[in-house]
Amino acid sequence: MTDMRRAGRRAPSSGAPWSFPPPWVRSWQREGLAGDVSAGLVVAIMLVPQSLAYALLAGLPPQVGLMASLLPVLGYAAFGSSGALSVGPAAITSLMVAQALTPLAAPGSAAYGALAALLALGSGLLLMLMGRLRLGFLSQLLSRPVVQGFTVASALLIMAGQVAPLLGWQPGARGALDTLRVWRDHLSWQDGWPHLQLQSGDAVIGVGALVLLWVGPKWLTWLARVLGWRDSVIQIAGRLWPLAVLVLTSVGAFWLKGADLGPSLGHFFGPVALVGAVSVQLDGATQSLALAWQQPWAAWSDLLMPVLLISLLTFVSSMSVAQTFALQHGERIDADRELLGLGLANVGSAVLGGLAVSGGLSRSVVNDAAGARTPLAGVITAVILAALLFACLPWLAYLPKAALAALIIMAGVGLVQFAPLRDAWRYDRADAWAFISTALGVMLMGFEAGILLGIAWSLGAMIWRHSQPHMAEVGRLPGTEHFRNVQRYEVEQLDSILMVRVDESLDFTNIQRVELRLCELIHARGHIERIVLLLSAVNHIDHSAMQTLLELDAALADQGKTLYLAEVKGPVMDRLQSCRIDKRFEGRIFMSAQHAWDALV
Amino acid sequence: MTDMRRAGRRAPSSGAPWSFPPPWVRSWQREGLAGDVSAGLVVAIMLVPQSLAYALLAGLPPQVGLMASLLPVLGYAAFGSSGALSVGPAAITSLMVAQALTPLAAPGSAAYGALAALLALGSGLLLMLMGRLRLGFLSQLLSRPVVQGFTVASALLIMAGQVAPLLGWQPGARGALDTLRVWRDHLSWQDGWPHLQLQSGDAVIGVGALVLLWVGPKWLTWLARVLGWRDSVIQIAGRLWPLAVLVLTSVGAFWLKGADLGPSLGHFFGPVALVGAVSVQLDGATQSLALAWQQPWAAWSDLLMPVLLISLLTFVSSMSVAQTFALQHGERIDADRELLGLGLANVGSAVLGGLAVSGGLSRSVVNDAAGARTPLAGVITAVILAALLFACLPWLAYLPKAALAALIIMAGVGLVQFAPLRDAWRYDRADAWAFISTALGVMLMGFEAGILLGIAWSLGAMIWRHSQPHMAEVGRLPGTEHFRNVQRYEVEQLDSILMVRVDESLDFTNIQRVELRLCELIHARGHIERIVLLLSAVNHIDHSAMQTLLELDAALADQGKTLYLAEVKGPVMDRLQSCRIDKRFEGRIFMSAQHAWDALV
Repeated sequence: MTDMRRAGRRAPSSGAPWSFPPPWVRSWQREGLAGDVSAGLVVAIMLVPQSLAYALLAGLPPQVGLMASLLPVLGYAAFGSSGALSVGPAAITSLMVAQALTPLAAPGSAAYGALAALLALGSGLLLMLMGRLRLGFLSQLLSRPVVQGFTVASALLIMAGQVAPLLGWQPGARGALDTLRVWRDHLSWQDGWPHLQLQSGDAVIGVGALVLLWVGPKWLTWLARVLGWRDSVIQIAGRLWPLAVLVLTSVGAFWLKGADLGPSLGHFFGPVALVGAVSVQLDGATQSLALAWQQPWAAWSDLLMPVLLISLLTFVSSMSVAQTFALQHGERIDADRELLGLGLANVGSAVLGGLAVSGGLSRSVVNDAAGARTPLAGVITAVILAALLFACLPWLAYLPKAALAALIIMAGVGLVQFAPLRDAWRYDRADAWAFISTALGVMLMGFEAGILLGIAWSLGAMIWRHSQPHMAEVGRLPGTEHFRNVQRYEVEQLDSILMVRVDESLDFTNIQRVELRLCELIHARGHIERIVLLLSAVNHIDHSAMQTLLELDAALADQGKTLYLAEVKGPVMDRLQSCRIDKRFEGRIFMSAQHAWDALV
Repeated sequence: MTDMRRAGRRAPSSGAPWSFPPPWVRSWQREGLAGDVSAGLVVAIMLVPQSLAYALLAGLPPQVGLMASLLPVLGYAAFGSSGALSVGPAAITSLMVAQALTPLAAPGSAAYGALAALLALGSGLLLMLMGRLRLGFLSQLLSRPVVQGFTVASALLIMAGQVAPLLGWQPGARGALDTLRVWRDHLSWQDGWPHLQLQSGDAVIGVGALVLLWVGPKWLTWLARVLGWRDSVIQIAGRLWPLAVLVLTSVGAFWLKGADLGPSLGHFFGPVALVGAVSVQLDGATQSLALAWQQPWAAWSDLLMPVLLISLLTFVSSMSVAQTFALQHGERIDADRELLGLGLANVGSAVLGGLAVSGGLSRSVVNDAAGARTPLAGVITAVILAALLFACLPWLAYLPKAALAALIIMAGVGLVQFAPLRDAWRYDRADAWAFISTALGVMLMGFEAGILLGIAWSLGAMIWRHSQPHMAEVGRLPGTEHFRNVQRYEVEQLDSILMVRVDESLDFTNIQRVELRLCELIHARGHIERIVLLLSAVNHIDHSAMQTLLELDAALADQGKTLYLAEVKGPVMDRLQSCRIDKRFEGRIFMSAQHAWDALV
């Protein structure tokens, strides 16, 4: 891939986010076609088990997941700019759907499906609105520790909840407390030993699938090394392994059902819970939406907060995935175009399927590795998936639910990463606590409370940090024009002159501290006549801080001391001039610390 | 006053805020006694009309204001450190009390008095708790525009509400909507002309008092100039004028009552509303507190928010007054000691009186001008006030309510200052909008909503500003070691090297923008091989930002570009070292832009 091509694929910065066709279409070149086609095929095969499993996780019939995978990729391709991002059902989004809807309707009911479609539609429209209003910057409210803590807690909730279908308990639990209750109900103590009640047929299939999913990629890697396959082939084969496991367990369930195991063995294995006959009606989702309009107003208003959070999370997680690959390829991602693309994807899902979708990391990695360079790969995925859907639909009936649960648990394993927490703890405790408070909040109080707690914590920490500015008394490194902290360097100082550097923009949150500290420094040095405030790190002075500075200046003048300013930044100087405050400091503003030194020495 | 004395009066920084006796007692010197005594006398005389008026404003019997002026000064003197601050009933605090209690009980009832005492007690305990926990920094959440907007809106509400008692309408209105309703009720149109219904006796006394209060100080100033009095005497005489007006109007009302005006004139003047017989029971407030314990829990919880806001406002306004005088005198104010002092003052008011108190600006100005140098002046005020109270109590019965209303209106006039808004508008629109949104919020939605709106606005503006960092491509001023913005100065740049200064601490709210802007600058310059990031204005890098920087570094390396850092501040460098990130940038961190220039040229 040449630099020329990269440059051609870059979105022009002047383009409006809602311009159509998107930049990738205009700059599309034939050389990328092979990669897009192969990636489209691989991702389509990978999407089959994932979309079935995530639909179940969301409390919806499995075929909804497949249907919901068709239109979103087209919607994203219409506006989005990331070649690698694969949009479709995702684990955390599905769990958020389930948490939001379970209090409102019975999972599996028509009303539940209707509300799920409404949720996707709402998220889609909100994302598009945010894109139209260029509100992409809102995602900056979510710091990384908050997103990471949220992901870990969600993954733990997902895994704990899937133990029920894995072992054949009915119904599956949602939420931490519900999960604990289900676990307690199925655990009994006999003769001092814990005894786990399980549906043995499901448990055998489920745990078997889990083991296969776990060790399969390792065997594949070993086999591939022996056979001398290329690394990218190994990676793709590893990603397709889940489909093979699903086929294997389906065959196993089919055999168990037909085989005559004899009374004792037959009793032991019991019935295996299967997905059962599924049917796809093209107008099913539109019927869902029509039903959604008839829902009571209370249900609509209950969806507002989930819609907001799902939109925000979808945007943040998709953007971070897209950004990762864009950096690797030297591409540019336009946040507002991404919002429009993700929004249209969710509207597409609402129209056909009815499950909120997001850009998933694992699928995007495969997409990129298989050669995807433009959103065309996604279009090809959708076409292949549609063909697969209609060809293989009857076979889905034999999918064991326990195997799908195993699939979801394995997806969760990949998301539970405590390394970011460890790094944050070493780097800055405040960031680590943002991670911890978000994770605990999500697990104990639900998604909404958890994420709001995380946002509040990280913004609070930022404001706190800002309100405690670092200030340093500085002096000159002998023989240079460099001024440094007197506590860190051997520097020279002038008698009766105090030079202080303030390392933070000045505003109402910190000006009181700055004033107090300045007075302390003046008293500590003893006989000070002139004070030079170095504003090299002051990027803004708000009105409260400016008033305080002027009062301080007057008070110091009353005491026979003079306040000087140095290294005033351009934007700050502009503001001083616009209010003629520079007149008041006339002759007392120096361009640099060195100029002040020369003038006052 | 010598510098020695000033130094002696300064609070030692090592003292715990709850140490007793307070520093001013330990360092007290006899020379200041005369000033303290004269100030104590003047302020006591000034407090009489003020405390009566503010108690009425709070919906309480006037004598409560007098009682509530006795103990608070002693409480403040026990911990506080400002010599000038005069603690007692204040206009805005009283209006906040009225707004908080009117929905809960009928003004004038025993339950109302009980809740008012409870409010003072709660505020006092909360302030002391904040002092004990050293939470003085919380006041920094209130920016000046918010406090100024709050003050203006409150003063307008106070003045509008006092028109009713001024003109003899009953009862007085509280809150903007209520005031409008009362005005509408008393305004009728006759023959196309507006016709104001008024109680002519009250109106004559009220408007007369208003005119006297308005023009009196001007006459006094003129008279004093003629007689050659000193400026300080004029100022104090001006402040005592309100008491003279009250005496004058009382005599007038007394005469109107006794005089035989004949049927027509007697009908015109009608009856004048007087304060009426007042009695002071020393155990009245303790009875109020006892009654407060019997209030339902709902009333208690309704008081939580008012208690919080009154405490915060009391602290912020008192601190700003104390700080003003401390700056003038070169004193130091300890925020945590102030919290304890103000808290104990309110507890004192709750025990004897029952009206939340605060440090008032106008009284403090008089106090300072009359020579107060330590809180002893306040103690003397309390003693004189107690004597006055018992000597003159029967005479209070003849005070016309309309004259007190005129007094409150004049106090409000001094608080309505739009100059800060004009200045803020010129300086920074965001600060002006904080003023406007607070003021409108207070007037249209009440104190709580208004102040919360103001805090949210100013914090939001600060976060927004922080999330939009100023970045400048810099070059070297020829022949110097100074590096400046290429758009503001004629500077020299090196081919293939981009030097960028980021003017904000890096964190999750702005790192995405910084990354995007950096990529734009790289593309704009064309062939760039080395990028130098000047961190002279970066005071902190949080974990999100550091992760992004490391990813950016890796991505740039993939493209054959190298990222350098320069002018990394001490605290930031410490953090890089603690996580060994400096190892990753080994040889790529320069002390200054000049070092980077020399090494890369």
